[in-house]
Amino acid sequence: MQSGEVRQIIDEANRSFGAAVARKDYAALAALYTEDARLLPPDAPIVSGRKAIEGFWRSAADALGLTNVTLKTVDLEVNGDTANEIGEADLKLTSGQAKAKYLVVWRRERDGQWRLHRDIWNNMPST
Amino acid sequence: MQSGEVRQIIDEANRSFGAAVARKDYAALAALYTEDARLLPPDAPIVSGRKAIEGFWRSAADALGLTNVTLKTVDLEVNGDTANEIGEADLKLTSGQAKAKYLVVWRRERDGQWRLHRDIWNNMPST
Repeated sequence: MQSGEVRQIIDEANRSFGAAVARKDYAALAALYTEDARLLPPDAPIVSGRKAIEGFWRSAADALGLTNVTLKTVDLEVNGDTANEIGEADLKLTSGQAKAKYLVVWRRERDGQWRLHRDIWNNMPST
Repeated sequence: MQSGEVRQIIDEANRSFGAAVARKDYAALAALYTEDARLLPPDAPIVSGRKAIEGFWRSAADALGLTNVTLKTVDLEVNGDTANEIGEADLKLTSGQAKAKYLVVWRRERDGQWRLHRDIWNNMPST
């Protein structure tokens, strides 16, 4: 698979991510992750598995008043059926805007779909 | 290459990481990273390239009074010449102990060495 092709698929998945957050569809959001994905949110323990990830996003979005996420890929490297992506996230929260950066390891699964497999982020410096 | 073999190599590299921090040898620390590695430290912009990474670690260790880091692998997946590692870091700082978790993408380079290629971390919940 060409890198450019994977890039397009991941761009599309990132738009689906934002759309799922906007309509508070956490099952659809969790379906973008692999079954055995792991999430490493700041100031929280590691979240393991799609079901736990769905619960995490539901609680976190609710607690923060997260209404929108826009993901922008800064760097993408594809190696066979895995890819690592560095990106920036713009978040709309009740408290205002926030900016984060992230590293996601993507995995292409047997069904041919690319899904988030490892996902960690932290804050950009406050401006 | 067997996963177990890569695990041993990465364990060893993680011990070298801790040893370099303990003796404040930031050139040796930076040499554990690929030439085009990227570091995503919390509350800071992305740091690109080995030279910038050396500078980051020197300043950050100095600012925080970082004297020791112990890295412990929680999960390691190997895919050809790349691997992704989730781990926990115990830090000794002037202000006391701190605990972080991290995601590192490792790359095996042409010289056969495995090096940190993408490195991001954030805090564990305070206890």
